[in-house]
Amino acid sequence: MAGINETLSVVHHFGEGAAVAAFGAAGALVAVRRQMDVVGILMLSAVTALGGGIVRDVISGTTPPYAFRDMHLLAIAVAAGFLVFLWNPPARLTAWPLDIADAIGLGLFAVTGTILAHDAGLSTPGAALLGMTSAIGGGVIRDVLSGSVPSVLRPGEHLYAIPALLCASAVSLLVRYADYQEWMGMICAAAAIALRLASLRFGWHGPQPRYARRGDTTT
Amino acid sequence: MAGINETLSVVHHFGEGAAVAAFGAAGALVAVRRQMDVVGILMLSAVTALGGGIVRDVISGTTPPYAFRDMHLLAIAVAAGFLVFLWNPPARLTAWPLDIADAIGLGLFAVTGTILAHDAGLSTPGAALLGMTSAIGGGVIRDVLSGSVPSVLRPGEHLYAIPALLCASAVSLLVRYADYQEWMGMICAAAAIALRLASLRFGWHGPQPRYARRGDTTT
Amino acid sequence: MAGINETLSVVHHFGEGAAVAAFGAAGALVAVRRQMDVVGILMLSAVTALGGGIVRDVISGTTPPYAFRDMHLLAIAVAAGFLVFLWNPPARLTAWPLDIADAIGLGLFAVTGTILAHDAGLSTPGAALLGMTSAIGGGVIRDVLSGSVPSVLRPGEHLYAIPALLCASAVSLLVRYADYQEWMGMICAAAAIALRLASLRFGWHGPQPRYARRGDTTT
Repeated sequence: MAGINETLSVVHHFGEGAAVAAFGAAGALVAVRRQMDVVGILMLSAVTALGGGIVRDVISGTTPPYAFRDMHLLAIAVAAGFLVFLWNPPARLTAWPLDIADAIGLGLFAVTGTILAHDAGLSTPGAALLGMTSAIGGGVIRDVLSGSVPSVLRPGEHLYAIPALLCASAVSLLVRYADYQEWMGMICAAAAIALRLASLRFGWHGPQPRYARRGDTTT
Repeated sequence: MAGINETLSVVHHFGEGAAVAAFGAAGALVAVRRQMDVVGILMLSAVTALGGGIVRDVISGTTPPYAFRDMHLLAIAVAAGFLVFLWNPPARLTAWPLDIADAIGLGLFAVTGTILAHDAGLSTPGAALLGMTSAIGGGVIRDVLSGSVPSVLRPGEHLYAIPALLCASAVSLLVRYADYQEWMGMICAAAAIALRLASLRFGWHGPQPRYARRGDTTT
Repeated sequence: MAGINETLSVVHHFGEGAAVAAFGAAGALVAVRRQMDVVGILMLSAVTALGGGIVRDVISGTTPPYAFRDMHLLAIAVAAGFLVFLWNPPARLTAWPLDIADAIGLGLFAVTGTILAHDAGLSTPGAALLGMTSAIGGGVIRDVLSGSVPSVLRPGEHLYAIPALLCASAVSLLVRYADYQEWMGMICAAAAIALRLASLRFGWHGPQPRYARRGDTTT
C-alpha cells in the first residue's frame, strides 16, 4: 500500500501542477478572446490558476496564502499563459482540450482544497464547502475580471459546481470518518471529472424554475 | 430588564435568521430574473446572505468565518433560495415584500456586524465601518456576480448605505460609551429599516454633482 | 544621512497621503462619469484608495487591515472624493492631472506595499507580488464595482502593472539583500512613475498575441 500511496502522491503533486497549468491556460484563452495584451494574458492566467487557492487560504486563515509563499505554482500558471500567448491556437483546436484540462483542474482542486481546509481546522461540511469554493473560485474571479457573469452561474452552462461539491463532500467525509488515503481522493477527483465531462457530452443541466421556462422573466 | 433582554435575544437570533432568509430570497430572485438554473439560484442565495458576514470576518481576522463554522445560516439561505426556485412568484408579487425583507436584513446585519467587529477588537469608527460593510457586502457581491453595477452605487437607487452607516455608527458609539443592551441595537436597526423604507416610499436620493445634472457627462 | 532620511520619511508620509488622495480622486471621477450620487462617489473614492491596502493586509494576515485601524487614510480619501463632488471639474481639465496623480499613487503604493509585505514575513518574490497587488488592487476593485473590465487588463491601456511590478521587485531585492533606505524606495517609486507616464506619453503597450492582430478573435 505504501508503494501505491507513494506513486499516488507523485500523481497528486503532478496533478496539482497539471491543474494549475490547465486553469492558467483557460485564463489565458479567455484573455486572448478579449484581445488583451501579454500583461493581461499573464495576469488572468495567474488569477485563474491561483485565485481559488488564495480565497481558500484567506478564508481558512492560512496567511500568507500558499501562492504567495511558494512561487512554483505561479511559475507554472504564468508559463501556461505564456505558451498560449506564443502559440495562440485557433479556438476550434482548444475547445475540447481546454474543457478536459479545466475538468481535471476542477476535480483535483476540489480534493486538495478540501484536505487543506481540514488541516486548517474546518468542520466536515465547512471543509467541503471551502473545497468547492477553491475549485470554482479561480474561474469566478477570471470571469468577473474579464467582464462576464461567472460561467458557474450562467444558465446555458453544464454541471460545474455540483461535481465539485459532490467530490469535496465525499473527500471531507472520508477524511473525518474513514482512514483517508490518497487513492480515495484520486477516485473522487476522477468521478468529478467524469461527471463534469459527461454533463458536457450529454448536455446535462440543472433544472430551471418554471417561471423562466414560461418566458415571462424580466431582465 | 433581564426578561426583556432575554426576549430581545430571542428576537435578535430570530432576526439574524430572518435577515439571512431575506437576503437569500433577494439573491434567488435576482438569479431567477437572470434565468439561472437551480445551481445558480442557490449559489446566489448563499453568497448574498453570507457574503457580507464572510467579508466582515475575513477583515476582522476571525477565520474561518462564522458561515464556514456553523451551517445553520447556510441552510436558511439555501432553503430561502429553494423556496423561490419552487414557488417562483411573479415579480409584481415580490417587489414590496422583498424590499421590506431586504431592509430588515440591512438593519439587523448593521447591528450584528458592528457588535462582532467590536468583539474582534476594532476601534469605534473601524467597527462602524465594518458593520456597514457587512450589511451592504452581500448585496454588492450578488450584483457583481450577476453582472451589474452594485445597487448601492447606482444613481437611481434610494438611500441604502446611509441608513446602514448611521445605524452602525450609533451601535458602535453605544458599545463604546454606554452600557449597550440588546434593545438599543433593536432600536437602531428599526431606525435604519424605517429610514430605508421611507427613502423608498418618498423617493429620497443622495445629491448628485452639478456636472451630472448638466448632462455633459461621458460614459 | 540621517537628515536626508528624516526629510525623506516626511516625504514618504506626505506621499502616502498624496497617493491616497490621488486614488480617491480617481475613484470619484469614475463615479461622476457613471452619474452616481454623493454616496456612490464617496464609496468609490474610499474603495479605490483603500482597497489595495485592504487586500494586501488580508493576504498578509495583518488583520484588521490598516485602513480599519487608522481613519486618517479614509478621511483623506473621502475628502478627495468630496472635493470632486463639490467642484466637479470638466473631464478635459482632469485628464492629465489625474494621470499624474494616479501614477504617483501607483509608484508609492508599490513601495509601501512591498515593505509592509516584508514586515509581515513574506518571501522576497512574495513581497514583490503583494506590493504590485496593493498598487493595482484599488483600481481593479474600482473598475469591477463600476461595471467595467479592470483598466490594468484592457488591451488599449498603457503600461500599468509592469512599472508596479518592476518597482516592487527592486524594493523587495533591496530590502532583502541591501541596507534599504527610504531614499532608495523613493528612487524606485520615481522610476515607476516615470515609466508609467512615459508609456502614456509615447503610447507604449505590451505586445498582443499574433492571433488577436490577425483579427479572427471571437468575443
